[in-house]
Amino acid sequence: MSFLHPNLWRLSLDDLFMKVALRLAEKGKGLTSPNPVVGAVVVKNGKIVGKGYHRKAGEPHAEAIAIDEAGEGAEGSTLYVNLEPCIHWGKTPPCAVKIKEARVKRVVIGTIDPNPLVNSKGIEFLRKSGIEIRVGVLEEEAREINAPFLKSMREGIPFVSLKMAMTLDGKVATWSGDSKWISSEESRNYVHLLRFENDAIMVGVGTIIKDDPLLTIRYGKSKEIVRVVLDSNLSIPERAKIFETLERGRIIIFTGRIRDNEKYERLRKKGVEVVPLENDGKIPLLEVLRYLNKTGVNSVLVEGGHTLSTSFLESSLVDRIYIFISPKLTGGMNSPTFFEGNGFPSISDSMKLRKVKSFCIGEDTVIIGDVKCLQE
Amino acid sequence: MSFLHPNLWRLSLDDLFMKVALRLAEKGKGLTSPNPVVGAVVVKNGKIVGKGYHRKAGEPHAEAIAIDEAGEGAEGSTLYVNLEPCIHWGKTPPCAVKIKEARVKRVVIGTIDPNPLVNSKGIEFLRKSGIEIRVGVLEEEAREINAPFLKSMREGIPFVSLKMAMTLDGKVATWSGDSKWISSEESRNYVHLLRFENDAIMVGVGTIIKDDPLLTIRYGKSKEIVRVVLDSNLSIPERAKIFETLERGRIIIFTGRIRDNEKYERLRKKGVEVVPLENDGKIPLLEVLRYLNKTGVNSVLVEGGHTLSTSFLESSLVDRIYIFISPKLTGGMNSPTFFEGNGFPSISDSMKLRKVKSFCIGEDTVIIGDVKCLQE
Repeated sequence: MSFLHPNLWRLSLDDLFMKVALRLAEKGKGLTSPNPVVGAVVVKNGKIVGKGYHRKAGEPHAEAIAIDEAGEGAEGSTLYVNLEPCIHWGKTPPCAVKIKEARVKRVVIGTIDPNPLVNSKGIEFLRKSGIEIRVGVLEEEAREINAPFLKSMREGIPFVSLKMAMTLDGKVATWSGDSKWISSEESRNYVHLLRFENDAIMVGVGTIIKDDPLLTIRYGKSKEIVRVVLDSNLSIPERAKIFETLERGRIIIFTGRIRDNEKYERLRKKGVEVVPLENDGKIPLLEVLRYLNKTGVNSVLVEGGHTLSTSFLESSLVDRIYIFISPKLTGGMNSPTFFEGNGFPSISDSMKLRKVKSFCIGEDTVIIGDVKCLQE
Repeated sequence: MSFLHPNLWRLSLDDLFMKVALRLAEKGKGLTSPNPVVGAVVVKNGKIVGKGYHRKAGEPHAEAIAIDEAGEGAEGSTLYVNLEPCIHWGKTPPCAVKIKEARVKRVVIGTIDPNPLVNSKGIEFLRKSGIEIRVGVLEEEAREINAPFLKSMREGIPFVSLKMAMTLDGKVATWSGDSKWISSEESRNYVHLLRFENDAIMVGVGTIIKDDPLLTIRYGKSKEIVRVVLDSNLSIPERAKIFETLERGRIIIFTGRIRDNEKYERLRKKGVEVVPLENDGKIPLLEVLRYLNKTGVNSVLVEGGHTLSTSFLESSLVDRIYIFISPKLTGGMNSPTFFEGNGFPSISDSMKLRKVKSFCIGEDTVIIGDVKCLQE
């Protein structure tokens, strides 16, 4: 391989091992919250001698697992990790110290950890310990894989994904409110995968009243998921099926000023968290998101209906949308779309999606994109 | 190849040569109307000795060209043709007679020609002449490639394609009516390809007033295309740009009872065809389609706006739709979708598309499907 410039060769090796670390990190997806997903690889003389990933909050960190697996091989090795190693004592000892003690020679990092307890201090410590550091390898991918953690750390609110199913003519329900089933069974199965990747699902109380869903996860039964209902008048039926699934995860109802104290107490006794937020008829979404984030929710999947999706889009609080388009035409000037409200006056003012992907699933087409205003 | 059943082997050879005939036929797409597209291949001892396709109405038929190219090789050969050979004298002599005279041994046909002048009479004649006949090879593809011709022959109306561009939230314009540009430049280029494949483009007069389009074809400049405007009150501006392009194809305006005789005469003098149809404020679409078909239009591309697309969908007159979905969100409960009107009361009553395909073009996603009611 002598015809390759040595720097180029080294670059591509760094990319390669970082990819391995990222693939390892991915295994923890949906399970590590409120912690980030992290994968680590210890490489000595071009060979992987240790690898690990963070499985769950409270369990060992990826770097520690990889170094332990490498044993004496860690000495003089290069460690690849998608996120800056921690320097603070949490539920486990700081990884930066462990890396130093194992006499690792070089550390390659995907992206820095904006956690105020870390935030380049891990890198600083390692550098001062005489360890060679490279930061920013496959950084875009490293940021993408921890988008919920990074957003939570930086903004104090969860990463919000909006999922909607619509007919090819753009309707999320008929004029009479029917929406069963717009999307194919395959798409609905895929939604369970999305739920699995998120810490919480959110619906409006209208969805509970109309569809009485369980809001559980079919895929990966062992995972608990937070179920969030926005219900300004606390009108949720006490017999809703969702209340039979409290062992599958927390249920949080955001509401306005409590008027029916008995209902409020009955729900709380069941184990439901009822959170009254001061508002003038409309739940303040930003406060909802801040509250959720404080209780460890780094990502929320908003599952509609159209009133909720419109509120989120109008408040510019959506990070990513997943639109399932079914090859049906239902028509109707009064059939809702997922983005109602006033709307933009011109096409050039409209929100434009970035990083758009689309693929087929069953008979449906799915379009995924990150929401961003053209003005940005 | 002895392990293959001889019939299976023969079947796949027939498929193979029929595919060649279909690819040849395709070369005439957009150019042969009101004739069908036809490709023919003469095969002798497993080798292609002649091939041809129909280039344009009035020019030689595919079978004649292929047989002439084969010369003496046609004797004892197999002829592959996607559509039943004609038996009537049109602008050229009947192909069935030519096939017989060339002593072709076997004729493999994609699908029969429902033209009342042919309609299995070609096959009957060949069979009586002692020629072996096989009908129905790659029949679905053979029907698809001539869908406009076959529909015209059977129903007396053109094949109708509806093309619309919408934002990801289903809007074909903002509430203020702006629609420039919803789709990407790549998508708009692709529309010129669609126009090329159709005999006519149709818009409502609202589109002429709002956008003042030329409605010409950028791709394949040599082709003339019929431009159809539905204008119940003959309110089209006489200075519309479209009138400067009469040399690029006929312009037909369908209107109601003529009230402004002078405008009517001025338009006719320009060379515009103005067709008054009795109606109570709404142009009768079925009559429009019948009229167009009688003047040689086998396929129409309906290009919106939402009033026209809704009328066509509500009248169940759309055969195929092409929806260009742009990764933009424009919002608005008053922003139109392409299928307004009353709409179906339930999702299960909705129209379901068949043969759905989707692909990316530029930043847009295109979904194509054949329209069909679930009840069918």
